Amino acid sequence: MLIDRLISKITALHSPIVVGLDPRLDQIPSYIKEAAFAKHGKTSAAVAEIFYTFNTAIIDAICDIVPAVKPQVAMYEQFGIHGLDAYFRTIAYAKSKGLIVVGDIKRSDIASTAEAYSNAHIGRVDIEGESVEIAQTDFITVNPYMGCDSIEPFIADCKKYDKGLFILVKTSNKGSADLQDIVTDQGQHIYTHVGKLVENWGADLIGESGYSNIGAVVGATHPLEALRLRQRMPHTFFLVPGYGAQGGNGESLKDLWTKNYGAIVNNSRGITGAYLTEKYKCDERDFAAAGRQAVLDMKADITRFIS
Amino acid sequence: MLIDRLISKITALHSPIVVGLDPRLDQIPSYIKEAAFAKHGKTSAAVAEIFYTFNTAIIDAICDIVPAVKPQVAMYEQFGIHGLDAYFRTIAYAKSKGLIVVGDIKRSDIASTAEAYSNAHIGRVDIEGESVEIAQTDFITVNPYMGCDSIEPFIADCKKYDKGLFILVKTSNKGSADLQDIVTDQGQHIYTHVGKLVENWGADLIGESGYSNIGAVVGATHPLEALRLRQRMPHTFFLVPGYGAQGGNGESLKDLWTKNYGAIVNNSRGITGAYLTEKYKCDERDFAAAGRQAVLDMKADITRFIS
Repeated sequence: MLIDRLISKITALHSPIVVGLDPRLDQIPSYIKEAAFAKHGKTSAAVAEIFYTFNTAIIDAICDIVPAVKPQVAMYEQFGIHGLDAYFRTIAYAKSKGLIVVGDIKRSDIASTAEAYSNAHIGRVDIEGESVEIAQTDFITVNPYMGCDSIEPFIADCKKYDKGLFILVKTSNKGSADLQDIVTDQGQHIYTHVGKLVENWGADLIGESGYSNIGAVVGATHPLEALRLRQRMPHTFFLVPGYGAQGGNGESLKDLWTKNYGAIVNNSRGITGAYLTEKYKCDERDFAAAGRQAVLDMKADITRFIS
Repeated sequence: MLIDRLISKITALHSPIVVGLDPRLDQIPSYIKEAAFAKHGKTSAAVAEIFYTFNTAIIDAICDIVPAVKPQVAMYEQFGIHGLDAYFRTIAYAKSKGLIVVGDIKRSDIASTAEAYSNAHIGRVDIEGESVEIAQTDFITVNPYMGCDSIEPFIADCKKYDKGLFILVKTSNKGSADLQDIVTDQGQHIYTHVGKLVENWGADLIGESGYSNIGAVVGATHPLEALRLRQRMPHTFFLVPGYGAQGGNGESLKDLWTKNYGAIVNNSRGITGAYLTEKYKCDERDFAAAGRQAVLDMKADITRFIS
């Protein structure tokens, strides 16, 4: 099963790290940008070429030290269909390098519509009897606000195609408190309530590792909440954003680790933008090598707490 | 302001109706499909042509009797970049016919990512100093689960470009109860709590009509909850899904109407798929005329309760 393959890769590399591929023009070396703008002008077609060139270099530099990458679709979607083409091609390239891909799409809708999103990202779409795969994503992130029936179509495709979800439970941003930290009349937080729902939704998809293909998003920026959820969700693997730029570090994650790691930690700008920081400052042409070093340092920072 | 323009159009037409453009291959006339498949094969390029041909015919047939259309992006996204091209072109065509366009995208993410979604759908994206408009959407739907800071970037663009939001409060599906109906330790439902947040978020964007550019999604399938929200959200205009296929009707909406209507009701399949129903059965080439008649009948069904 997918979750077992993810955990095997994490274990083999001792690297519970996913590299976020969230390209931003102002964080991409100028030589890459200049080449594409010279060819296509200041157009979204140029941006797509820039993103793809940048991403593939990062992927080449880190594919032997991390199990997975996580492209954030919004970064591509903002450049329209050219941007989305770069998103889909980035996923295909990462897959060709043996990486597991988490599509960070945070979609949700009523069942009949959720089915269409699922078709696009983890399932297949039917064109008059032809079954077509649009994206090769392994996992996607989804939003639970609309309830069980809005999640079921995604779970059906997880079963059918051995795919996975990371469902938002306690997100890394400060504003997550506004809804997720509300206490119910049963005396539990909304994030705990959602956590229990997620644990139940994943019950049919538990692999040999003891974890389900249905995982949860739990931010590194809330160590206490993460620990509570860890205890209540024994079969749920966590995708943990918020390391680095958002404030999480190895220390804040230390109570999270459990059997078979139990979690994978995302870092986006801290890797892809490493070459711009004081610590990894280098010629912009060495951005990918700087990113690789940042992964190795992150690995050391978090694995010192994993026994 | 956008909300005032929407209300003026509703008032002039006495038609608080938005037509959902959620194309499904199995509900599109075969003559349209055959022409495109003959030209492009069974490909997503063919589907894009089919959707655009279908949508533009529907738009031509209803643009003088409704103020707005609401394409559901998932239906297009499932066909990849060709599908999304049809989505963006449908929006542009609807705008060229004077319609207000609600992009039903239900996006959400942390602030830096929400900004990218906002750029794509209601704002502009910057390409090395060139400010580019990707979609011409007027309103978009967004999901509040991630809290205030996840909504703020969208509101900033609403202020800057006179655009609007419909934020999910109480959705039309049955599963909406799983989270939205939870009672907090303050004795109020989550949907009420979110409703109050939405009313606050919209406070700076209230137009002459008394309503804000920041609206709420409140399902027609939950009349009691809708009424409660109506009373607590005096400055929030409602987008009401769930009429027709999902079970809502004129009667179930009757308590919703207030000053300047206060709401717009969506119908998708009931209009675009009217020609397939017993009531409007006709030659498939008359699908758009059947859709127009379905709009007129819906208008009669709901406006009999509006004084």
